[in-house]
Amino acid sequence: MTAYDALQEHIAALNDLLNVLNILKWDTRTQMPPGGSQTRGYQLATVSRLAREHFTSETTARLLDAAEKEIAGEDPDSYRVRAVQQTRQYYEIVRRIPADLLARRATLAPISEQVWHEAKQHNDFARFAPYLQQMLDLAREQAEAIGYEEHPFDALVFEYEPSMTAAKLQALFDALKAGLLPLLEQIVAHDRPLEKDLWAREYPLDRQRAFALEMAQRIGYDLERGRLDVAPHPFEISFTRHDVRITTRYDLHYWPMAFFGTLHEAGHALYEQNVDPALTRTALTTDFLGQYAVGGTSYGAHEASSRLWENLIGRSRAFWGAHFGRLREVFPEQLADADADLFYRAVNRVRPSLIRVEADEVTYNLHIMLRVEIEMGLLDGSLRVSDLPEVWRAKMKEYLGVVPETDSQGPLQDVHWSGGSFGSFPGYTVGNVMSAQLLDAARQQVSGLDDALTAGDYAPLLGWLTEHFYRHGRAYSADEILQRCTGRPLHVEPYLAYLRGKFSDLYGLQ
Amino acid sequence: MTAYDALQEHIAALNDLLNVLNILKWDTRTQMPPGGSQTRGYQLATVSRLAREHFTSETTARLLDAAEKEIAGEDPDSYRVRAVQQTRQYYEIVRRIPADLLARRATLAPISEQVWHEAKQHNDFARFAPYLQQMLDLAREQAEAIGYEEHPFDALVFEYEPSMTAAKLQALFDALKAGLLPLLEQIVAHDRPLEKDLWAREYPLDRQRAFALEMAQRIGYDLERGRLDVAPHPFEISFTRHDVRITTRYDLHYWPMAFFGTLHEAGHALYEQNVDPALTRTALTTDFLGQYAVGGTSYGAHEASSRLWENLIGRSRAFWGAHFGRLREVFPEQLADADADLFYRAVNRVRPSLIRVEADEVTYNLHIMLRVEIEMGLLDGSLRVSDLPEVWRAKMKEYLGVVPETDSQGPLQDVHWSGGSFGSFPGYTVGNVMSAQLLDAARQQVSGLDDALTAGDYAPLLGWLTEHFYRHGRAYSADEILQRCTGRPLHVEPYLAYLRGKFSDLYGLQ
Repeated sequence: MTAYDALQEHIAALNDLLNVLNILKWDTRTQMPPGGSQTRGYQLATVSRLAREHFTSETTARLLDAAEKEIAGEDPDSYRVRAVQQTRQYYEIVRRIPADLLARRATLAPISEQVWHEAKQHNDFARFAPYLQQMLDLAREQAEAIGYEEHPFDALVFEYEPSMTAAKLQALFDALKAGLLPLLEQIVAHDRPLEKDLWAREYPLDRQRAFALEMAQRIGYDLERGRLDVAPHPFEISFTRHDVRITTRYDLHYWPMAFFGTLHEAGHALYEQNVDPALTRTALTTDFLGQYAVGGTSYGAHEASSRLWENLIGRSRAFWGAHFGRLREVFPEQLADADADLFYRAVNRVRPSLIRVEADEVTYNLHIMLRVEIEMGLLDGSLRVSDLPEVWRAKMKEYLGVVPETDSQGPLQDVHWSGGSFGSFPGYTVGNVMSAQLLDAARQQVSGLDDALTAGDYAPLLGWLTEHFYRHGRAYSADEILQRCTGRPLHVEPYLAYLRGKFSDLYGLQ
Repeated sequence: MTAYDALQEHIAALNDLLNVLNILKWDTRTQMPPGGSQTRGYQLATVSRLAREHFTSETTARLLDAAEKEIAGEDPDSYRVRAVQQTRQYYEIVRRIPADLLARRATLAPISEQVWHEAKQHNDFARFAPYLQQMLDLAREQAEAIGYEEHPFDALVFEYEPSMTAAKLQALFDALKAGLLPLLEQIVAHDRPLEKDLWAREYPLDRQRAFALEMAQRIGYDLERGRLDVAPHPFEISFTRHDVRITTRYDLHYWPMAFFGTLHEAGHALYEQNVDPALTRTALTTDFLGQYAVGGTSYGAHEASSRLWENLIGRSRAFWGAHFGRLREVFPEQLADADADLFYRAVNRVRPSLIRVEADEVTYNLHIMLRVEIEMGLLDGSLRVSDLPEVWRAKMKEYLGVVPETDSQGPLQDVHWSGGSFGSFPGYTVGNVMSAQLLDAARQQVSGLDDALTAGDYAPLLGWLTEHFYRHGRAYSADEILQRCTGRPLHVEPYLAYLRGKFSDLYGLQ
């Protein structure tokens, strides 16, 4: 056995354990009876601890040393070299995080989440504040342990978006705001109610499910290696590329929730299902720091895929031109008085609102920027926890022109911070920006792409994404992927041009 | 921390890993898309290997030494002493089994199962024979590694039924046959068709499910800590007492399959759900040798619970006296022309048949004895693999009076041997015999038990079983349990008396 193979076999076992953690999480969120939660917690903790011990062991160091000698001089862009490099990089980082810090966070997180849940129910920010402070202190401690050059946020965002730093994000946000805020102002000025309210009708859930699954398969989601379940907080999760599961939730009236939710998660799933089979159970499908088995290279890259399929494809005029007829076969009474144009406008209505998860394409990123800027401020000390409600209201006013009347609809709306997750929000916006840059490149490189999309044929797009993006798994960073297939790193122009074009048309802007 | 607590914490992590294996198995059999099987195999293998390494480590020996000193002189029947004793006993046994033997079996088993599957489809015993020979050789190797005094079967049956040996089983079988064979002869002579064929009608599956689940809850199955799914080969499985899942399968016409299957698995589940909470994550809910997290003390004890609820309760006149009215509410058209008496006779029809899993209460054990006697012969060399089809036919003729025309309906019908499982069959018959002995004891010790059962009130029986049987988990062997709560070890009289009484009444025997 070569030194590389010996390291790979060691990492394969770690990858198996992280896939097992994924399976336990999927079961917990979709199948487990309520009584199972306490002992499930022990099972998760034991596997997580063994995975960490396995990775941070001296065995890993010994195998790494030997593999590094063996690959010296090989192509630095090859999967072999990347696998060894990343294993080394994360080995050093993960070992810097003290086990007792992880234990303290694991103990506190469920309590903090429970308090957050109660605080949200009772609109009582003060009740949650001391727990937020503790989770923040733990996050700062982790940032110090990992190390950073400029901003503690840099150490935390690294887990989710290794190409990003606080400074790069702030520049991205400034460029986005410069385009988004004037566009939103124009849209709001031109908004008028649609002639019919399609979401006052009833859409039977079994038919919602069947149509959503049909379209998920249409874009390429493979049910031989997947399945669709119900979850209150929908997600996609993989147990290697051979078993990639998605979830959604249903509303009897508001049809877009389950449908676009399914398409979004199917967009995530397409990434995972199309990673090169050679990367299965390797470092290049292993998120060492997050203890997650995943083929996607970052949260943002993953979100680029989900948003591309959900929004750029699924909310396009071409998509409903191709599939509205089929939808009307499924819901003949509900849609008897609608046509593709009305439907297209109905699924693209823009309205500034208080709740992130209900936001449209134009306002969504403003919700994200608000959160990320607040996270940065809390981490560098320029904001205090007690400032949060006031800062939230001010930023909502500035970015969206609406202000929550309660903290439950404000800083208490998302679960992320209560569990100690800081640094994950930027992925949503990075993903949106990246999705347009990728689709632009595909349009330039695949002849006849728009004709295929108009005909409802997604194979050419999926083929291009697989060849240039999906298959590489975690071998290249989001920035490297973009550089390789679009010739430039992440930049906002394609995304802003996409939004301007689409919504100028929809809202009759000049 | 005391030495006992330190050992307990170490075993708790092992128990977590075995529960994780259970979760993976449940998912594999009920939820996993077909493409997931290969990488699921790696995940199972990795967790299984880590569990073995964890248990057979020097750490276990060190913790055991200290705990043994600490508990010296304590009550030998206490859970503490039993937990340490069993950990020691299995530590010595598991360490005797070479890792390479386990690896060879793990590699061969899926191939052998695949060949068995093909051989069964094509009625080609010769195709399967060399794989059966190899699995048998591995089983013999395991028996030699574990060690035994009289018969290699003793070393193998120990994993499933620690109270049993080949000699004790043969004595049990001889006593059973002496009672069963004449009874069966009489029944066959008195058999005549029922006046109506209730299983030619259609029973919609959703209502089958609802009624089965209603009755499972009625006998005490707790859905806060459980759920019912579909599986082609139904089973019960637990991830600690707090999450105990059952499965069944449905036939549109043959209503008894899903119903009694559900009641059977619910009977298993009642055992697991009622183990003392103090035993959660301890040695006394750990099957060290089988790498299985389970509260039941042996296969036979588990089967005693499932058969008691399925047959002694679920197929009793009292049960249908109490619940036939409810069933007719669920299936008003299907059962318009039936009454409780006809229904009772319809679910208790006895007929010698070729297939074990379709056998009734009277013939079932004959199928088991045939298999166990063959296993013993194959293991001690008195039978050769090539003899199997002929021996099978001869024993079928002798015990059941029917002979299979094909090997697919003969020695190829069960999956067990193809996966290398030898020694598990006796549990079914031990369980049947034990179930009657237990119910007899409950009748003597719980006043008014039969009145409660007639009224459809199962709480007194469940309470007695919990107090005397279920709660002890694996602290006492099946024989010890019987000695403690019936005053005698396993013996056939109550079971034979039960069958004689029930079927003499049903078939009008003298």
